[in-house]
Amino acid sequence: MTKSHALQTNMDVDYVVNYRFAKTVRGTAISKFEKLVEALASVGLQTEVRNGGKHSVLLFARVASEEHLHGEVYRSRVQDWIHGVRAGAPPKETREALDAEPLYEAERLRIIYQLITNPVTEGGAGITPKEGEWENVESIFALHDHEYNKDWMKKWSTTTFLQTEDLDDIRNRFGEKIAFYFAFTQSYFTFLCFPAAFGFVSWLLLGHFSPIYGIVNAIWCTVFTEWWRHQETDLAVRWGVRGVSTIETKRKDFEHEKQLTDPVTGETVLIFPATKRLQRQLLQIPFALGAAVMLGALIATCFGIEVFISEVYNGPFKSALVFLPTGIATTCMPILTGVLTNFATQLTAYENYETHGAYETALTRKILVLNFITSYLPIFLTAFVYVPFGTVIVPYLDVFSLTVRPFAEHEKQLQAPKAGFTINPDRLRKQVFYFTVTAQIVNMGIELVVPYLKREGFSKYKQMQSDRATKQGGAAPSPNVNDPPEDVEFLDRVREEAELGVYDVTSDLREMVLQFGYLSLFSVVWPLTAVSFIINNWFELRADAIKICTQMQRPTPWRADTIGPWLDALSFLTWLGSLTTSAVVYLFSNDGLGPDGHPSSITGWALLLTVLVSEHAFLLLRWAVRVAISKLESPGLQKERRDRYLVRKQYFEENLSALERVPRMAEAGGHITRQSLEEDARTSSLRKTSPETKFWGRQRGWKETVAVGRNLIEKADAAASPERKKEL
Amino acid sequence: MTKSHALQTNMDVDYVVNYRFAKTVRGTAISKFEKLVEALASVGLQTEVRNGGKHSVLLFARVASEEHLHGEVYRSRVQDWIHGVRAGAPPKETREALDAEPLYEAERLRIIYQLITNPVTEGGAGITPKEGEWENVESIFALHDHEYNKDWMKKWSTTTFLQTEDLDDIRNRFGEKIAFYFAFTQSYFTFLCFPAAFGFVSWLLLGHFSPIYGIVNAIWCTVFTEWWRHQETDLAVRWGVRGVSTIETKRKDFEHEKQLTDPVTGETVLIFPATKRLQRQLLQIPFALGAAVMLGALIATCFGIEVFISEVYNGPFKSALVFLPTGIATTCMPILTGVLTNFATQLTAYENYETHGAYETALTRKILVLNFITSYLPIFLTAFVYVPFGTVIVPYLDVFSLTVRPFAEHEKQLQAPKAGFTINPDRLRKQVFYFTVTAQIVNMGIELVVPYLKREGFSKYKQMQSDRATKQGGAAPSPNVNDPPEDVEFLDRVREEAELGVYDVTSDLREMVLQFGYLSLFSVVWPLTAVSFIINNWFELRADAIKICTQMQRPTPWRADTIGPWLDALSFLTWLGSLTTSAVVYLFSNDGLGPDGHPSSITGWALLLTVLVSEHAFLLLRWAVRVAISKLESPGLQKERRDRYLVRKQYFEENLSALERVPRMAEAGGHITRQSLEEDARTSSLRKTSPETKFWGRQRGWKETVAVGRNLIEKADAAASPERKKEL
Repeated sequence: MTKSHALQTNMDVDYVVNYRFAKTVRGTAISKFEKLVEALASVGLQTEVRNGGKHSVLLFARVASEEHLHGEVYRSRVQDWIHGVRAGAPPKETREALDAEPLYEAERLRIIYQLITNPVTEGGAGITPKEGEWENVESIFALHDHEYNKDWMKKWSTTTFLQTEDLDDIRNRFGEKIAFYFAFTQSYFTFLCFPAAFGFVSWLLLGHFSPIYGIVNAIWCTVFTEWWRHQETDLAVRWGVRGVSTIETKRKDFEHEKQLTDPVTGETVLIFPATKRLQRQLLQIPFALGAAVMLGALIATCFGIEVFISEVYNGPFKSALVFLPTGIATTCMPILTGVLTNFATQLTAYENYETHGAYETALTRKILVLNFITSYLPIFLTAFVYVPFGTVIVPYLDVFSLTVRPFAEHEKQLQAPKAGFTINPDRLRKQVFYFTVTAQIVNMGIELVVPYLKREGFSKYKQMQSDRATKQGGAAPSPNVNDPPEDVEFLDRVREEAELGVYDVTSDLREMVLQFGYLSLFSVVWPLTAVSFIINNWFELRADAIKICTQMQRPTPWRADTIGPWLDALSFLTWLGSLTTSAVVYLFSNDGLGPDGHPSSITGWALLLTVLVSEHAFLLLRWAVRVAISKLESPGLQKERRDRYLVRKQYFEENLSALERVPRMAEAGGHITRQSLEEDARTSSLRKTSPETKFWGRQRGWKETVAVGRNLIEKADAAASPERKKEL
Repeated sequence: MTKSHALQTNMDVDYVVNYRFAKTVRGTAISKFEKLVEALASVGLQTEVRNGGKHSVLLFARVASEEHLHGEVYRSRVQDWIHGVRAGAPPKETREALDAEPLYEAERLRIIYQLITNPVTEGGAGITPKEGEWENVESIFALHDHEYNKDWMKKWSTTTFLQTEDLDDIRNRFGEKIAFYFAFTQSYFTFLCFPAAFGFVSWLLLGHFSPIYGIVNAIWCTVFTEWWRHQETDLAVRWGVRGVSTIETKRKDFEHEKQLTDPVTGETVLIFPATKRLQRQLLQIPFALGAAVMLGALIATCFGIEVFISEVYNGPFKSALVFLPTGIATTCMPILTGVLTNFATQLTAYENYETHGAYETALTRKILVLNFITSYLPIFLTAFVYVPFGTVIVPYLDVFSLTVRPFAEHEKQLQAPKAGFTINPDRLRKQVFYFTVTAQIVNMGIELVVPYLKREGFSKYKQMQSDRATKQGGAAPSPNVNDPPEDVEFLDRVREEAELGVYDVTSDLREMVLQFGYLSLFSVVWPLTAVSFIINNWFELRADAIKICTQMQRPTPWRADTIGPWLDALSFLTWLGSLTTSAVVYLFSNDGLGPDGHPSSITGWALLLTVLVSEHAFLLLRWAVRVAISKLESPGLQKERRDRYLVRKQYFEENLSALERVPRMAEAGGHITRQSLEEDARTSSLRKTSPETKFWGRQRGWKETVAVGRNLIEKADAAASPERKKEL
């Protein structure tokens, strides 16, 4: 993009609606466009239209009246408070509320976006891009703030550790959901310093498969996971979004079975029975098993072929044939994953969730299963099948000789040496190295390049569509020919942004969590893992920032109060790590591969005992860490507690101030007893003589009680021994 | 106790203070008595004194003015609400508040008790029985409501399942803490129906050590524990005590290190650093280990001697000598337990907790460790040491020959048969039977008899003390000689109640939890366990009611929001059960004892694998049960949610009602855009011509946007093919 004045102003535009009509007949296109503009105007948005090129127009929308917008913001905040998302009640005046807590950009954009997309019944314009009657609305996006983006990238490229204020800044610009991703990655990056340092020392001094490294690493993983759990709540409170998932708007596709009146709020709620959903959710079990079997079979096959070729096959083209399994994997895996992902999406839709959040969480969980299998199974196979059982299994790999038979010159090249076969002890280390270094670098490259290619591709495709519409009748005129000269630059920029992809924060989070998995599960194999990750993540954080700023449309600022299912994934990986690490350490203890290349003298019960003890030590540790972390003072929770207290206090002062005048028991003491109450007792005893009245009428006032008591004590004492009397 | 009118009235007495002066000189006794009466009067209590006999006087106290008491009640409720214990704010008028939610007896008694015992700085009279300057105050107790007690026992003796209303009734009379005990025992009793029925069927059809029974039992234990966790919260909300532990008064013995101002409430709080306490808490680890070693050694020794005598020893007096280890255990065990309990108490005091609740929880946890060891270790030894390793260990039991050498006639009687020794496979079953049937019956007997004996003993002791004070000079005059005739019966009754013990709900709870442990850990050995327990518990519940009503002073009604550490104990036992049950089932599978009496063909790895799989299945199950139960609608939590919502709503309506007048964005749409805003835009464009103003000034109103858009679409379409034009 060129540096110019066009980058410095967004012309006060709040949102741009990209309206495409290449595949629509003229009349429909015009009437739909009219409807769109009217809908936007109906929620108080001012509009301007410009040519978008390639059979599209760009519709610019901005808030017609700031005052009216402030009303919406205030209403949204009050709603948050009523539903318990905000602890402190907003001030009573709109103006005051906005002064006390200024409107931030993400909030503004979110509220406007909701105005545009919410159903008409909920006060929105009901515009749903690419769906139903709004099929022609290709996208609704805000414009990048290039000034800010430039500063942001400049600042980040010179700092190593981000402060909470930096995260606040992201939250204010891009919303809480994206801010949570950066907060998580930043915490992870900071925490990585320790295992990177320790891993380096351990690599120098302890070597591979060190139990000490394993224990320290497990402790680190636990502390990090639990700390993030704490930190997340804290940030959610800081950003005023704790519990925000409960007030999400309904999914349009949600099908209810009955309507009920919420006993709490009195609102009508649509119900889909939980038991019915549970039944549908149970389908996840066969899905997970099926996916595991299919992906597992594919991976195991490739693995088997690879082992066969590299360690059994002895004929020509060996160096080329070694890439055969990689070839199979890279062609079949995406297809299979695609099919399974598609199936997972359908299954999730069938589970019929009420909110987008619940839907996404459920989908993410399913895809996580696929990711776990494809990411970790290859190493699992090496560590727990190839190494311990290699000598037993490899001879059976003859079945794979089919794959290379055409190249073999004679049978012998296809037969495993009956006894002399040795396991390659370096395979595990190489594999871990591949996944923790090579794959990370490749991934980052892809992440930056693919969106660019995609964009170019789409741009070409749209050009083609447009060309087809204009037939072969010469090239379409450049879209900016009719632009007013002072707007040309700006409009060119908007047209460019309209072509960009939509940023998906989930995939970035997935990447981080899967990376954490390698550390927790297998870093004992190669202690430098964390060093590789810390370098990678420094770039990753910045690359993601660049991606958001230049490769993607400005993301719609959604709210979130957690990184969601990823937190469970972290817990799961940490726990699984306690099993794999101990098992790997036991299997390879003192680099203890036997003379035939497979571990010598391993016994089943000792392996199981190691795993059992390690797991329970881990569970105990996690409990202790949780307790310790829960004792930490959390500024966020403290703020929440204070806010809640203040609301009650205020309510109390305003409404219950009569409390000061409520009598105290102590006031009934002293005087009252001696004077009025005695009088009461006397007069009442004249009226009636119930046993109770008589009983309480005998001693009037506490002084009389003392006198009677003294008498009783003296009498009892008088009956005592004369010796005792003398003592007195 | 005799049935009479005296049982029907409590003479409006709220509390009785038992003041004893047998060991105090007359002058001090009198001055201290005066101080006591004055202190009670100072908090608004009316007093009457009567002779108590045995060198004591009974001081009766009642609230001088109900209106003033209502003030205290209201204040206490408002305080609860401010601290978040109650979700709904109390009404603004005292009278209204008490009408909406009437004062219940336990609340009344609690508030009066707190008035008497709270420190003077907190508005109480500062009377602490048996401590410091109030050493002569032997007890402060309320009088039993005999009418109610009679009805209660009558009702319970004819019903099997208690309703929530029955529990509410107990809560209203005896306070939440005791009500929680009954609620728990009742839930447990109800839940026991299933394992009792299934256990019976399983005993008939499946026999002992059935894996099916083991699995069903583990599921049941898990469901019960999780359900109770849910139920507990629900009850806490129902009774308005959720979170009550946070507003407990400080322990008198708590030593603070610094004072801070609470950032939330602005109150001054006394701080003892958590890290320092943690250091002290770490002493629990050596304590637990030490206790385990000592108790374990004692139990193992007795166990060894018993095995030696019953299975090796062959000489005379065998039938009598068998009781030797029981003798050793019954003499040494209480001494050792006493010493350890004492140590635990000191350790807990050293840990310096802020509140009574925290102190008691910590103490209970420590004593729980002791209880677990003494209750379960004997069976553990049989199942996991004697049975699998018996043939290895028994020959070494010769060391115990010392204990019976005097009785032996010749050496041979003391020697284990070298090869012919067989393990007694019935030992485990007999032991489980002993702990689950015999011991339960014995315990219940003791529970009812011991307080009676204790009372008699104490009564004798006090008589002796009193006698010593009056020397040998003839029997003291009966305390009731000077009573007014109409009060004699009542006062005799009060004197009797003054002699009774203080009810401790913790020990009853412990009994139930330990019983649950046998079910969870070992019932697979003898599936009728639950049948025994269900019968026992029907009586237990009633016996406890009788105990509270007749054997103990009326308990002071404390509040609680949970059964506290016992819930953790249940979780722990359920988890441990998943290990022991699977291990026992594996060891004894298909009643699989080999010909030599010890299990044949057990292998270490298979045992470990069984345990590992079983444990993980359990953890998965628990997670699933938790999720399922969390989905259950909880009336209590719903009420809480509603109350909170209503408070916010009310605040909202009273203070934020201006919201209706806050402008909506939609109002800024339509008309405004077309008229005023266009006008604005036009006028402003006259004044200044920034690029933004120009940009937004081109199309005035949405209709103009539509017109321009139509033009653009038509133009783009015009460039399209003539064929397409024809279509239109």
